[in-house]
Amino acid sequence: MATPFPPLQNDLLLRALRGEAVKRPPVWLMRQAGRYLPDYIKLREQHSFWERCEKPELVAEITKMPVDQIGTDAAILFSDILVTGRALGFNITLNEGEGPRVLNPVRSPDDVARLAVPNVHDSLGYVLAGIERTRHALGGKVPLIGFAGAPWTLLCYLVEGRGTPNFYVAKEFCFRHPEAAHRLLDILTQTTIAYLEAQVAAGAQALQVFDSWAGLLGFTDFQHFSLPYLQEIARAIRPKAPLILFAKGVWHSLDRLAETGCAVGLDWTVSATRARYLVGNNRVTLQGNLDPARLLSPPEEVVRRTKKMVGNFGTQRYIANLGHGILPNTPVENVKLFVQTVKEFAAS
Amino acid sequence: MATPFPPLQNDLLLRALRGEAVKRPPVWLMRQAGRYLPDYIKLREQHSFWERCEKPELVAEITKMPVDQIGTDAAILFSDILVTGRALGFNITLNEGEGPRVLNPVRSPDDVARLAVPNVHDSLGYVLAGIERTRHALGGKVPLIGFAGAPWTLLCYLVEGRGTPNFYVAKEFCFRHPEAAHRLLDILTQTTIAYLEAQVAAGAQALQVFDSWAGLLGFTDFQHFSLPYLQEIARAIRPKAPLILFAKGVWHSLDRLAETGCAVGLDWTVSATRARYLVGNNRVTLQGNLDPARLLSPPEEVVRRTKKMVGNFGTQRYIANLGHGILPNTPVENVKLFVQTVKEFAAS
Repeated sequence: MATPFPPLQNDLLLRALRGEAVKRPPVWLMRQAGRYLPDYIKLREQHSFWERCEKPELVAEITKMPVDQIGTDAAILFSDILVTGRALGFNITLNEGEGPRVLNPVRSPDDVARLAVPNVHDSLGYVLAGIERTRHALGGKVPLIGFAGAPWTLLCYLVEGRGTPNFYVAKEFCFRHPEAAHRLLDILTQTTIAYLEAQVAAGAQALQVFDSWAGLLGFTDFQHFSLPYLQEIARAIRPKAPLILFAKGVWHSLDRLAETGCAVGLDWTVSATRARYLVGNNRVTLQGNLDPARLLSPPEEVVRRTKKMVGNFGTQRYIANLGHGILPNTPVENVKLFVQTVKEFAAS
Repeated sequence: MATPFPPLQNDLLLRALRGEAVKRPPVWLMRQAGRYLPDYIKLREQHSFWERCEKPELVAEITKMPVDQIGTDAAILFSDILVTGRALGFNITLNEGEGPRVLNPVRSPDDVARLAVPNVHDSLGYVLAGIERTRHALGGKVPLIGFAGAPWTLLCYLVEGRGTPNFYVAKEFCFRHPEAAHRLLDILTQTTIAYLEAQVAAGAQALQVFDSWAGLLGFTDFQHFSLPYLQEIARAIRPKAPLILFAKGVWHSLDRLAETGCAVGLDWTVSATRARYLVGNNRVTLQGNLDPARLLSPPEEVVRRTKKMVGNFGTQRYIANLGHGILPNTPVENVKLFVQTVKEFAAS
């Protein structure tokens, strides 16, 4: 029988996600595990990216780093949204400085017809083992967040074959072959649901879905190619674990995201006042939204903007975070200041 | 004495910009001169990018192409927003497939201290000569739109040194050195005002300012680093010619843009209903906003979406356009269909 996980000591994130009263908002940062951390950069020299994702002991070590070194109120699993693509049989490289490359991208409806929902316990077992290992390594200090890429964002990479500013190849595919696109989105959705369920079974205590490229779609196209799949994931997963939907650039549909009952992640273009208004005040928990580039400001400015952010969102039904992933060249001291400022907010 | 320009035959664009009644909305496309047009691609083989911008006969020929071949209701000058940077002494290359490169970008506040507002008649005389030549070449068929880059977007390129997805180097510069950034923005604003005034004197009949990267700024940062400069340009230029402000991604400040009294260009994330609501219904003329990637759809879909767009915006105080520049690989037939569908809208 498996060893039970240590009891949770800091439940601020889970309380905020359930809408319960908290003495101060929890704080974590998207992409907090990796990139800017000197200890991570050292590991990068010894292990390839996929090796870092595949070895449970490395996953646990990297995931734990920001909890110990920065003091965040949650750990987010060190992994990548493109593991879902790998599970579907795509050959994906992730070399430093180059970004992801899909060596066998979708180029025709026939390429989609060949795909099927994989058994995630086989194809993503390495992530699940990493989750279990990490839960033990964390020792109950903070909760562990699992995650997955949203179907639309995964489609962007799997069709375009790499990161580009506008993903026009992927959009053209969807606009020319809507049936094949919806078939691909459906396969990605079923895979993601199974994957997230398995993450919860393995030990993830909360989940986030990243729809990083949702904002590239027009208002109507978002309702067709992204939202229904996010809704389907939310319906399946919410009964099992608290879920945060982060759809970057989707200011126009925050109300629809809030209607799923999930917490809603915000990018930095949305002011707190407007976000609260759009989702119906304190009906849902909001997460965000400092511009990651603002952590490149002088320290006093980081403090000032962080205080203002928490002041504007309020301390309840709120999770302090950035509006997108932390930048690789962010000074560690500024990340610490960000976290410390949120923690001290109640006293200020 | 200069030869007077031929009288204008199609004043739909100017009427729509003045808020006068029109029998149907005018239609043109951002970046309509170039890229996707076979005759332009031929010229590209014989003349470098800057040569095409510098020789008045080439400027006139390229600017006129979409008017004759696609049937747009306006010509927009063939040029580039980065001519303003060149006028300030930046060495900028624009090679096919590589995007712009600034060989001597701003790297420190000292680099800004060395800059001064140039005499635009000297440094941008080639554009002004191109405008005059084009007005004659157009023969009064449609009005000629002049344009310039917005100060914020120009700063992005001049500091970052090239196009990137997020312009983090430029943002970091602004956040670390706000005084130098504002000094640079002020120089760019004064240069832009003088440049746009000179364009009107040379024959431009309407103007557009492109703030392509405004949406990278958070709500508050946009109010600091972009909006005041757009407002200053609007105050100076509006008494001289109709002006369209296109700030991509700035859904959150459409009301502030509308308050300048300028026409407001929209990207494709904003629905017509929401845009009309945000700017106070028919108080200002709106322009946009089909997703350029939607012109990669099958022809019947191009027609359907174009009809829907005009139907949603209405025929008055509206200029049909894309939500950003046309893509290089757009089929010419689809561009023609887009224009034709707008023209036939009243009859449908």
